Amino acid sequence: MNIVLLDPRQTEQALWTISSKRQIEHLKQHVDIQVGDTLKVGIREGKRYITEILEISDQKIVLKRLQEQAVPDKLPVTLIVAMPRPKVLRRLIVDSVTLGVDKIILIHSYRVDKSYWQSPFLQQLDQYITLGLEQAGDTIAPKIEIYKRFKPFVEDVLPTLIHENCPAFVAHPYVENPMPSSIEHSCNIVIGPEGGFIPYEIDLLIKNGCQAFHLGNRIIRTETVIPYLLGRLFC
Amino acid sequence: MNIVLLDPRQTEQALWTISSKRQIEHLKQHVDIQVGDTLKVGIREGKRYITEILEISDQKIVLKRLQEQAVPDKLPVTLIVAMPRPKVLRRLIVDSVTLGVDKIILIHSYRVDKSYWQSPFLQQLDQYITLGLEQAGDTIAPKIEIYKRFKPFVEDVLPTLIHENCPAFVAHPYVENPMPSSIEHSCNIVIGPEGGFIPYEIDLLIKNGCQAFHLGNRIIRTETVIPYLLGRLFC
Repeated sequence: MNIVLLDPRQTEQALWTISSKRQIEHLKQHVDIQVGDTLKVGIREGKRYITEILEISDQKIVLKRLQEQAVPDKLPVTLIVAMPRPKVLRRLIVDSVTLGVDKIILIHSYRVDKSYWQSPFLQQLDQYITLGLEQAGDTIAPKIEIYKRFKPFVEDVLPTLIHENCPAFVAHPYVENPMPSSIEHSCNIVIGPEGGFIPYEIDLLIKNGCQAFHLGNRIIRTETVIPYLLGRLFC
Repeated sequence: MNIVLLDPRQTEQALWTISSKRQIEHLKQHVDIQVGDTLKVGIREGKRYITEILEISDQKIVLKRLQEQAVPDKLPVTLIVAMPRPKVLRRLIVDSVTLGVDKIILIHSYRVDKSYWQSPFLQQLDQYITLGLEQAGDTIAPKIEIYKRFKPFVEDVLPTLIHENCPAFVAHPYVENPMPSSIEHSCNIVIGPEGGFIPYEIDLLIKNGCQAFHLGNRIIRTETVIPYLLGRLFC
């Protein structure tokens, strides 16, 4: 936690109050805060500030606003990911938010186990987003969309996301050209499930405007390939 | 598991035998192998082959070698990482091995909890390396070294790793220049602990030949920053 995220309602008074048990416990146990220390605070969907700690108790921490700080920019990328295993979903969302992904779209695919869509983890996306924002020092949640049917998404939604300065790339092992690097425009990245997209899916993606590129001859897991790709594309 | 790693002793006969319970269970449950299927197999520290499955039982899988395949190249990088929390260590090693890091050095640092060095996870490095190699389709384990004292490592070992075409980069938030990208030579990457290196440590690293660069204004966790940096540097 490199910033404490507050709801706008918690910052309506002159003095601000942290009341979340999770945040108070973290600050006491891991940051060892003291009255008089400064603390970085972000307002959800708003600005970021340096504050001073005025009061600490088990129930609340009272803060005084000192100075505004810049909120980090987002990466101009829409990440389109085949719904991963529940455990991987958490890491994928936290990491993508930390790295500044602007929009995340979770889609179905042939090799996605249907049970993943019933996972209770899917109800906790907001919590994962908060963890990612607090890690990065960001305040703006990415947009998240869910499409439980592959074909309608690829045929009806994907083409609306692709523009002249916003192509769509899919990582696929059996193609000739390597994934671009250091691009200077926005893009969509499509990431398949464990085991990859099936040929029908790759064909449909390409038919609807996606460009397929390989990432070398190592097979990289979804949760690892996302930071790897973002580092490569936006450097 | 995208390749089954065998010990050289398991491949001395004309027909090869998988006898590891972990590998047999994985292949039966997740890959649904059948007699007559092909299977990718790597020999530890050796070559990689397509094989044919001749026999499947609860105790063993018997294979016939068909054709040699290329082993993926390593990235020419030495990763020098402050010893992370035990849970992070596993992910860090598996991911680094998957992405092809040539050498990993674990070091102590002021903000590394001393208990991390007693972690039973540290006895399982070989197992994490196997998982990373089997994920990537690689056969060659990276070299791993451990230095439990920061100053002697930085003063006596680090300078021997730095050459004209092999600089050392440390990611640090409070410096002017951004981390290089798309380099065409080998390098050392130094990654601090949670909370970062203390100023004394950064100074000592720089004094001993390290170059400090920032990675933007997001704070990224160790296990996420490694694939992100590798994607950026080797693209």
